Amino acid sequence: MGRGIAVLMMFDSFRADSHFMSDPRTFASRSEPKPDRPTQMLPAVRESGYEIPFLRDRLRVQSAAVMWGSEATMAKKWVYFFGAGEAEGGASQKPLLGSKGAGLAEMTRLGVPVPAGFTVSTEVCAHYTTNGQTYPGDLRAQVGEAMAKVERAMNAKFGDAANPLLVSVRSGAIISMPGMMDTVLNLGLNAKTVEGMARATQNPRFAWDSYRRFIQMYGDVVMRLGKEKFEHIFSAQKKKRGVAADTELSADDLREVASLYKGLVRDMTGTDFPEAVDEQLWGAIGAVFRSWNNDRAVTYRKLNKIPDDLGTAVSVVAMVYGNMGNDSATGVAFTRDPATGERRFFGEYLLNAQGEDVVAGIRTPIAVAKLADALPEAYRALDDTQKKLERHYRDMQDIEFTIQRGKLWMLQTRTGKRTGFAAVRIAVEMVDEGLISKDEALARVPADTLVQLLMPVFEGEAKTRATKEGRQLTKGLAAGPGAANGKAVFSAVEAERRHAAGEQVILVRAETSPEDIRGMAVAEAIVTGRGGMTSHAAVVARGMGKCCVVGCGELAIDEGKRQFATGKGNAVVREGDAISVDGTTGEVFAGGIPTHPSEVIQVAVEGKKAASDAPAYQLYAKLMGWADEARRLKVRANADTPHDAEVARKLGAEGIGLCRTEHMFFEGTRIDAMRELILSDDEAGQRRALAKLLPMQRGDFKGIFGAMTGLPVTIRLLDPPLHEFLPHTDDAIAELAKASGVPVQKIKDRAAALAEFNPMLGLRGCRLGLTQPLISEMQVRAIMEAAVTVKRDGLEPIPEIMIPLVGLATELERARTQAVAVAEAVLKEAKLRVNYTVGTMIELPRACVVADKIAEQADFFSFGTNDLTQTTFGLSRDDAGRFLPWYVDAKLLPVDPFVSIDRAGVGGLMKLAAEKGRSVKPNLKLGICGEHGGDPESVEFCHTLGLDYVSCSPYRVPIARLAAARACVAEKK
Amino acid sequence: MGRGIAVLMMFDSFRADSHFMSDPRTFASRSEPKPDRPTQMLPAVRESGYEIPFLRDRLRVQSAAVMWGSEATMAKKWVYFFGAGEAEGGASQKPLLGSKGAGLAEMTRLGVPVPAGFTVSTEVCAHYTTNGQTYPGDLRAQVGEAMAKVERAMNAKFGDAANPLLVSVRSGAIISMPGMMDTVLNLGLNAKTVEGMARATQNPRFAWDSYRRFIQMYGDVVMRLGKEKFEHIFSAQKKKRGVAADTELSADDLREVASLYKGLVRDMTGTDFPEAVDEQLWGAIGAVFRSWNNDRAVTYRKLNKIPDDLGTAVSVVAMVYGNMGNDSATGVAFTRDPATGERRFFGEYLLNAQGEDVVAGIRTPIAVAKLADALPEAYRALDDTQKKLERHYRDMQDIEFTIQRGKLWMLQTRTGKRTGFAAVRIAVEMVDEGLISKDEALARVPADTLVQLLMPVFEGEAKTRATKEGRQLTKGLAAGPGAANGKAVFSAVEAERRHAAGEQVILVRAETSPEDIRGMAVAEAIVTGRGGMTSHAAVVARGMGKCCVVGCGELAIDEGKRQFATGKGNAVVREGDAISVDGTTGEVFAGGIPTHPSEVIQVAVEGKKAASDAPAYQLYAKLMGWADEARRLKVRANADTPHDAEVARKLGAEGIGLCRTEHMFFEGTRIDAMRELILSDDEAGQRRALAKLLPMQRGDFKGIFGAMTGLPVTIRLLDPPLHEFLPHTDDAIAELAKASGVPVQKIKDRAAALAEFNPMLGLRGCRLGLTQPLISEMQVRAIMEAAVTVKRDGLEPIPEIMIPLVGLATELERARTQAVAVAEAVLKEAKLRVNYTVGTMIELPRACVVADKIAEQADFFSFGTNDLTQTTFGLSRDDAGRFLPWYVDAKLLPVDPFVSIDRAGVGGLMKLAAEKGRSVKPNLKLGICGEHGGDPESVEFCHTLGLDYVSCSPYRVPIARLAAARACVAEKK
Repeated sequence: MGRGIAVLMMFDSFRADSHFMSDPRTFASRSEPKPDRPTQMLPAVRESGYEIPFLRDRLRVQSAAVMWGSEATMAKKWVYFFGAGEAEGGASQKPLLGSKGAGLAEMTRLGVPVPAGFTVSTEVCAHYTTNGQTYPGDLRAQVGEAMAKVERAMNAKFGDAANPLLVSVRSGAIISMPGMMDTVLNLGLNAKTVEGMARATQNPRFAWDSYRRFIQMYGDVVMRLGKEKFEHIFSAQKKKRGVAADTELSADDLREVASLYKGLVRDMTGTDFPEAVDEQLWGAIGAVFRSWNNDRAVTYRKLNKIPDDLGTAVSVVAMVYGNMGNDSATGVAFTRDPATGERRFFGEYLLNAQGEDVVAGIRTPIAVAKLADALPEAYRALDDTQKKLERHYRDMQDIEFTIQRGKLWMLQTRTGKRTGFAAVRIAVEMVDEGLISKDEALARVPADTLVQLLMPVFEGEAKTRATKEGRQLTKGLAAGPGAANGKAVFSAVEAERRHAAGEQVILVRAETSPEDIRGMAVAEAIVTGRGGMTSHAAVVARGMGKCCVVGCGELAIDEGKRQFATGKGNAVVREGDAISVDGTTGEVFAGGIPTHPSEVIQVAVEGKKAASDAPAYQLYAKLMGWADEARRLKVRANADTPHDAEVARKLGAEGIGLCRTEHMFFEGTRIDAMRELILSDDEAGQRRALAKLLPMQRGDFKGIFGAMTGLPVTIRLLDPPLHEFLPHTDDAIAELAKASGVPVQKIKDRAAALAEFNPMLGLRGCRLGLTQPLISEMQVRAIMEAAVTVKRDGLEPIPEIMIPLVGLATELERARTQAVAVAEAVLKEAKLRVNYTVGTMIELPRACVVADKIAEQADFFSFGTNDLTQTTFGLSRDDAGRFLPWYVDAKLLPVDPFVSIDRAGVGGLMKLAAEKGRSVKPNLKLGICGEHGGDPESVEFCHTLGLDYVSCSPYRVPIARLAAARACVAEKK
Repeated sequence: MGRGIAVLMMFDSFRADSHFMSDPRTFASRSEPKPDRPTQMLPAVRESGYEIPFLRDRLRVQSAAVMWGSEATMAKKWVYFFGAGEAEGGASQKPLLGSKGAGLAEMTRLGVPVPAGFTVSTEVCAHYTTNGQTYPGDLRAQVGEAMAKVERAMNAKFGDAANPLLVSVRSGAIISMPGMMDTVLNLGLNAKTVEGMARATQNPRFAWDSYRRFIQMYGDVVMRLGKEKFEHIFSAQKKKRGVAADTELSADDLREVASLYKGLVRDMTGTDFPEAVDEQLWGAIGAVFRSWNNDRAVTYRKLNKIPDDLGTAVSVVAMVYGNMGNDSATGVAFTRDPATGERRFFGEYLLNAQGEDVVAGIRTPIAVAKLADALPEAYRALDDTQKKLERHYRDMQDIEFTIQRGKLWMLQTRTGKRTGFAAVRIAVEMVDEGLISKDEALARVPADTLVQLLMPVFEGEAKTRATKEGRQLTKGLAAGPGAANGKAVFSAVEAERRHAAGEQVILVRAETSPEDIRGMAVAEAIVTGRGGMTSHAAVVARGMGKCCVVGCGELAIDEGKRQFATGKGNAVVREGDAISVDGTTGEVFAGGIPTHPSEVIQVAVEGKKAASDAPAYQLYAKLMGWADEARRLKVRANADTPHDAEVARKLGAEGIGLCRTEHMFFEGTRIDAMRELILSDDEAGQRRALAKLLPMQRGDFKGIFGAMTGLPVTIRLLDPPLHEFLPHTDDAIAELAKASGVPVQKIKDRAAALAEFNPMLGLRGCRLGLTQPLISEMQVRAIMEAAVTVKRDGLEPIPEIMIPLVGLATELERARTQAVAVAEAVLKEAKLRVNYTVGTMIELPRACVVADKIAEQADFFSFGTNDLTQTTFGLSRDDAGRFLPWYVDAKLLPVDPFVSIDRAGVGGLMKLAAEKGRSVKPNLKLGICGEHGGDPESVEFCHTLGLDYVSCSPYRVPIARLAAARACVAEKK
């Protein structure tokens, strides 16, 4: 298998594309080997390993594996050894071995120093969870064999009193879920082996510290006893000894702690803490498998659209120790800066510490470059290794290492998470370095990450002013770029509560833990007091594309009192106070600082050439250039005003896919004319009102045609039911009565007459235009008169008149006839030709079913997926909020279908419509103008459907362009 | 072509099956010869005439005709001659010649005496209406040739001063539309020919009377001058002469009238009345073609579901005269009684009259049997002819004849319209007579006609009492059977107005005209003062299956004063007064008389054996027996109570297709428990409320299972949104607050919290059951506990639990798991096995698209076509009233899709769902429980889809059984 695929596979763990998760069965039916052709499929599966795009398909892996077993009648392989330069797996087996297991195996093969170990595959997890938490019959034997190999490689024996082998038991999902699942370290210690370890290391204190740590961790993770009571014993011991730091406790103190811990376990469980190392091992393996379904992990998967059935592998790895003295260290690092993408070895370490100390953010670690001074030889080995790994994987790596008494051990390598900005920079620079192709670069930048390049920054002056005013509260580590302001909150619950109430919040925590994920998701920014660039807060925030500052040690954050003292005078920030966060510099400010468009927006939209040297813009321009070369789908914008049209064009829109004329009716005095129309008693009155609206609409259309000269502009005729234009409250009605001279009662009567039980399914769209043709006539006249004027000005208007809510071919036929009559009349009056087309929204299931008939009347189709989703599901978007989130939580739906197109249902109807439409008119223009047009998943789906364009809000245009390019890249494989 | 087909074709003009009209293009694509196989299709088309089922397909006829022309490169034949025992067309050319033209040709071939003439085909009508009212180039020559043949056959010359040939010009649609279109008589008269006619007949008075009639008719029909001014001149002439009757005017008087008429024409039009007979002829032909699109005709077609593009033919027939003295007569008759179906020659005639006098109901005519006394020889010829015609056509014929100076001429034969009762009787008796097969009998009784056998009659005593009380106002002709009561109204407009306001009305008119059709359609019954059994009122009412009494000469009906005097004392019935009508006896009563179930209902439902000798029941039983033998679809009923279930079973239901559990919650105190449930704050409160509902539901289910023992009962779990159960008005809320002890504000808050923008698309159906599982659990428990009890009683309950509003397979999976858990728990408690199934409504487009996935979870599908129509169209049934009727009027829709399934759209999704469902489970049970289940068109569609059953309201069960049988018969052809 080629390197490119391996790298892409690794990359993709960075962000899962959710469409593979939309409906497991749908997907299965799409790509699973057909049951009736197993022999034909099998060789390919076998030879190529798992040649599945991005390897996200657990199902196929499983079914292929099952077939192997049945075909070859060989015993199933559950356990994969690695160590001493030899490994049974590699990067390509990620679905089986998990990210961690695959990385360890691959590193072993590469000759990188890795402690020996073995990985229990994800298939065992599947077996375990679906078979009442039991294991396959032959697993125990395979684990035994692998353990024997580890013993040989590490020259120690598991459970041996004299020369004990200790291991860590770690989870390892296919897609990394940092900190979500459980790990047990120092496993293999018991009353005998701890003595052996003390002898072997000649460091009884270290041995007993390891033992008490093991009991605590095992008690917490495997036995579910919690940490608190252990910590209480430990604190009591320190108090008893009158010491402050853990390190001040002696070996005997720790032996006593271990004994007290065991007593605690006995008290809480009624049984002894397990002495048998096998019992320890199987307990830990089971705990890891069970942790796949703990609440944190489930929440994380939902937030990150990771399917629940992937499962985790378990890697059992020989322990190495970074806490064996000052010749030992442990650290985590990235081969490039994950925040900015800069090409520099970037990370943190702690001398004489265990890995958990770094990740947990309990001690603020030291920059990895400093390791060159502390342990120069080990640093050289580390630096060589990181370079080797990045070259090998052809992507930025996130590595974990331990230096045990001067010797480097690599514990993990995986594709590193990064900010959107870093993703763009790394991808673009790796192309420049010749490491990857342009297509690979496109595939590595999830379209949504562009949001971060488009995100606001602080206005330069405003921030300077705030600084001068002394409002800078602190400067921490810039863990997630961007600028934000909001009200400080001190708990995830409060963040959720205020967010739900419509407030912008910034979550301030001493440090974050997986329990905070929901709060983090709704916050504008995250600020923590402790922890480094690889702390939980930093990692999660980067994944979410959030502005984030960590390690603000100056802030005395008191979560209980819901406030923090700043260390600057007596200033205290309390819950609800406004603060501002600069995630690019790490600064935190008191009060709100106005934000400001990003450099990309400045250059592209505002025409400020000065900003065009900014790296953000340079990278953006390069990447978008490649995207535009690669993509097939055109990208248009939904815009209702000349201004929006201009912005959209500057961001690369190739036309307007949806101009909602009714939005024009809500502005200023226009609503008065609209209301006059609705309240008119006769045609004469209606015509008077329409005569007022005509010039307003014409003016808008002129502006839009001007902004979009040479590009098509799709204008939808009036869509909403008329009652939406009438006031609803008594006050507003009274006001209208006064202004219009129409009696209150008449307004109320008219509103009552127009009221509907189900407005979504009522008198709207073309039903309105057909029953009230005067409105459509005015609109078509305004469109065509504007086009004539613009053309006379030497520009090139391309109007596309769109009839909404068509369900019957007869509706479109009649509406088209109406529109053409008016348009031709205008052109005849003007003695000028402007080419125009008439098409329809496809937004009703019936329209999809009879799309061939409708196509006969249509120059184009534009899928209105908002309404199509509502009608296909029978689900009101306005009402679904009461149960749709529960549906997603309860896994009835993989994702909110209003966010990402429901491929099986709504998508099935779209496919039918596209096929039927093109069966009649092979070149029928097809587009989408629902809000899904800006959703990368949906854009990809539209690409596979063969649509001509997507249309989205102006600021989503770059994202759609990139998504369209990525769809093409994905298709090539 | 066989006789059977001819007869069926004729029959079908009686009532058009509308599905052929649903979407002309859909149908075209279904049955039109494939364009790529013309040569293969053509011979069959040619040899068999037009072998299209029921010949309702104008499209195919046209395309076949076009192909003939192009294939043979022969000049197109537009005109078909008949006369002197020779005819160019026949019964099989009805689509080309119209019903009248085909009948005249066929009769000519049979040797029946028919005046010579020719028919201009319906294709000319199509050409005329689509080519700006112009004719094909070669038409004039063909008409000239045909006219020459007529002249030879009749031995007279068109326009000849000495021996003038006079003709009638008559419309003739494929499907008869009595009185809807225009006719011109006596054409060919002018200043010269009138003298010739006077000489030839030796009857100047007759000649001048004919002439003045012609001018009046032509002036009205062709020149559109109206009748009024002509009638004014005529009245003035009578006044001037001091005479009362028309017949008292002399030849000279009439000559003067003709002259005055011509002056009137000149005054009104500025041109002379046409003297040239060719000009007269073409003027009349054009008027007939134009009359196809007059308002009356359009309305009639809409009411009778006749497609607008069929067009009319024009028959030009040599005039014969029934008004040449007392040896002349004219009449209309049926070969069997069209009201009762009795086998007797039945009709009316007038001596010395023109046909129009009979049909218009101006003079009350004499029973045709009396003709045997007046003109015995002519009567014998007539009687022989009617027998011959019925034998030939193998169906009851509606004939028109004229006896001119003792010689019989037949002017028309067509399949006669009849009441539902007569349709059943004639069909059944013709089988007994060996004239037709059982299948043919089934095909001849449109399923909806059974309504008339199930319609109420007066309670015997109540009517007797009313008679004793002297409330019988009059006894007219029993033109349409049935019993009705309602408020008297005197105009069609008022009938419509009051009907719209919810009142039952009886339309009372001196006589009806086509302008009254809409009013007749909404009336419970129709009463007229003038006219016979073949008058407009009688014919139309029979077509509508209405109770109707005509010829009530005793009633002095004053339409202007909106009242009638009864001739019995001073009794006057005013608009709004209650009256009752017995359409079976012809009686009209003052006041309301309670009605009473029909004999069929008495025997079948009420078990009154006494009524089983009644012919209605006998015929019903025989026909339904044949239907049950013939059909494949099972028929179930929608029933929510044990009583409805019992009635349904007695009417032949083979199970319950839909038991709506929520209906049970609205009854009496149950709503209180339901409200308690909704207002509960916690699970304990909800459980308390549900515990109250459980025994109520269980009791209902017990009754239903008992009534339906051995047959399946599909019970739908709670469907409507909960807010439907809460009160909405302030008063009702206050009452509930008082009764429940829940504060008013809390009730309002809860109602507000539950309120929805689009309840149709809201929290209902399975969404409710999934988010509030306690309700579903209670319902399933009630179902299964009831089943257990009933089974213990020795009966056989077959519960089918139906989950509503499923759009996702995951929804059904979860709901099914819930339901099965409860059901199994109940059965385990009871230590008894009851077989049950769990299935779903298919009522959302998404469910249709993913029906294969859903089928994996379902034991059965039941199409909920009400909601499926709403969501497929994006059309709220509650709101569509504001524009749907307009849609049908404007021909955007052929028929209200809530009445008859929209085959192309909703039907397309049903087909998809059926295919996908059965692709996974070949024996998946499929049914329909929407209201369409009782619509014959929709039943036929369900048959073609291969559903297992339809379900409808109990009293529609016999109709669905017959419709199902007819679908099978139709399929055989």
